[in-house]
Amino acid sequence: MFKAAINAELLKDAVAALAVIVDEVRFKINPEGISVKAVDPANVAMGIFELGSSAFDEYNADECEIGVDLNKITDLLGIADKNDTVRMELEEENHKLLIDVGGLSYTLSLLDPSTIRAEPRVPQLELPAKVVLNGADLRRAVKAAEKISDHMLMGVSDDTFYMEAKGDTDQVRLEMGRDQLIDLKAGEACSLFSLDYLTDIVKPTNKVNEVTLSLGKDFPILIDFEIANGSGRISYLLAPRIESD
Amino acid sequence: MFKAAINAELLKDAVAALAVIVDEVRFKINPEGISVKAVDPANVAMGIFELGSSAFDEYNADECEIGVDLNKITDLLGIADKNDTVRMELEEENHKLLIDVGGLSYTLSLLDPSTIRAEPRVPQLELPAKVVLNGADLRRAVKAAEKISDHMLMGVSDDTFYMEAKGDTDQVRLEMGRDQLIDLKAGEACSLFSLDYLTDIVKPTNKVNEVTLSLGKDFPILIDFEIANGSGRISYLLAPRIESD
Amino acid sequence: MFKAAINAELLKDAVAALAVIVDEVRFKINPEGISVKAVDPANVAMGIFELGSSAFDEYNADECEIGVDLNKITDLLGIADKNDTVRMELEEENHKLLIDVGGLSYTLSLLDPSTIRAEPRVPQLELPAKVVLNGADLRRAVKAAEKISDHMLMGVSDDTFYMEAKGDTDQVRLEMGRDQLIDLKAGEACSLFSLDYLTDIVKPTNKVNEVTLSLGKDFPILIDFEIANGSGRISYLLAPRIESD
Repeated sequence: MFKAAINAELLKDAVAALAVIVDEVRFKINPEGISVKAVDPANVAMGIFELGSSAFDEYNADECEIGVDLNKITDLLGIADKNDTVRMELEEENHKLLIDVGGLSYTLSLLDPSTIRAEPRVPQLELPAKVVLNGADLRRAVKAAEKISDHMLMGVSDDTFYMEAKGDTDQVRLEMGRDQLIDLKAGEACSLFSLDYLTDIVKPTNKVNEVTLSLGKDFPILIDFEIANGSGRISYLLAPRIESD
Repeated sequence: MFKAAINAELLKDAVAALAVIVDEVRFKINPEGISVKAVDPANVAMGIFELGSSAFDEYNADECEIGVDLNKITDLLGIADKNDTVRMELEEENHKLLIDVGGLSYTLSLLDPSTIRAEPRVPQLELPAKVVLNGADLRRAVKAAEKISDHMLMGVSDDTFYMEAKGDTDQVRLEMGRDQLIDLKAGEACSLFSLDYLTDIVKPTNKVNEVTLSLGKDFPILIDFEIANGSGRISYLLAPRIESD
Repeated sequence: MFKAAINAELLKDAVAALAVIVDEVRFKINPEGISVKAVDPANVAMGIFELGSSAFDEYNADECEIGVDLNKITDLLGIADKNDTVRMELEEENHKLLIDVGGLSYTLSLLDPSTIRAEPRVPQLELPAKVVLNGADLRRAVKAAEKISDHMLMGVSDDTFYMEAKGDTDQVRLEMGRDQLIDLKAGEACSLFSLDYLTDIVKPTNKVNEVTLSLGKDFPILIDFEIANGSGRISYLLAPRIESD
């Protein structure tokens, strides 16, 4: 059993954050909320998504698992006003999700969860450095880097967090000291990441006040922020690239 | 003789509503106003357009007929500000329409009306059900249906007007009861329409408060609304599709 | 030596005005300011650009010349907020320009000025007619002409400035009398220009209050306006087309 109501914009943001990683996901539903763990087809980025029952206006659920094509949800929410309420109800026997938004009733066929890639195991990583910064700062650095290169270095040096991209002839670097960051735990950290992935991952952070980055030396980065006013959380784990030179 | 002045935005909206059906039209001009009846090239949709002389700031006309390429008018009005006045004068002898808008003087060659498809006869239809609703509601339902299918069912069942689209796996339905509609005359009505056409036809209704739909069982739909603050009227007649299953 | 700071939007507008003519330019820098003279690859349009030191918040420069790819500057300024300050410093020995904007530090490789087309000689022209008008009026006439033709006539007849475009069947004409113009010096003037070029040249004039046009009979047009609140100036010289009929 699953029956819930949630604000349309909140759901739209949450779905957009997930859609950065995969199109088809297994939602794990239980009485406490909804969660997803998914890896992108190339095994480079992982998304860990949690939306607690308190994010919903109404929430009633037993433990179950449903397979959803996120593109369909995105399409359907595209027509909703941001203050609309989205009502969802699972029709378990015939694998349908009934969605009602702004008077429109959708009947969405669910995917068989067994046809969707299994939930990945989340690796336990010791990431020595931690940086908390405004999402818009992160996004701006990524946008600047894109103009110049297809990968970007992120690291911590003494009390400074830096992002740097080098093209064939040009380079761009953003340094943020402790006073420009919300928080900083210094530690040895310097890794190179693909901007193809970072660009997508960083899109949902644009309206996020506090994004936490956990970094190591040639280690994956963990990009982590709250959604739904603290009732949920998204974490992205992005594998590093090996510098060719 | 034809000499007239009209608000640019009002003319732009009227032309846009016509352009949904055809590119080249015969405008029938007489002392009471301008009218067009046109059928789309595939004979699926008809547009019936009337703009009374009261829609104009100035209006002087004898009976005449001119052939116009609506794309040219659309282009030219694209440069006008919405509060500009458009002045038009027919140069009968050399088949030109002089158009003056915002200081720019256009000399537009008219089309020979005899080269444009003749005015269609408007069929007399008995359409038992009538629904009056807000244009934005209609447009939203059509946009939702487009995501799922290429045709949409519209009908009246008891005191409820419904629109429904079924895709291969999903469906969407909008039901509006008597209290959500501006007016409803119940009657047996249920017909399927092409969303290719509906999408275009419904575009100009977006800012229209009252759109009247007249419906029957596997019959054409008549979509009807006022333009130019009640000085004009557009009616679209759209043929039904035969359901394949 | 070159070290300067300038408002991001002001620099963006100045670069956009230059980019209309060429992608790669030689900036001539001296203690009084920066100047560029450049011709487009087809030798049809010339741009003469001057930005005085008073346009800058800070300005320190010896005489030098640098080669810049304007696309890179445009990309980089695309990320700046319009109130950001852009700080630039030349690293002469390794041919780099350090650009700092909104915390992002760019290191831009400069082009070897000797690989960029040499500064053109500006022809001395006697252009008998002069018209001063609002940039938005000019732009609107050009946009209207584009819809109809690929070239446009500009001239002065008695006390009237006119722009006219003729297509195969249609034409558009804008006439502005002395009272609609900011200033007019009458003189024999009537030349035909390519709208491909005019469209681009006229883009930056959209927010300019006073644009000066100097015209002759089958002569180039000089389009001239202030930038940076009067601290700079752009002049475009556009060769006429020979009317084919």
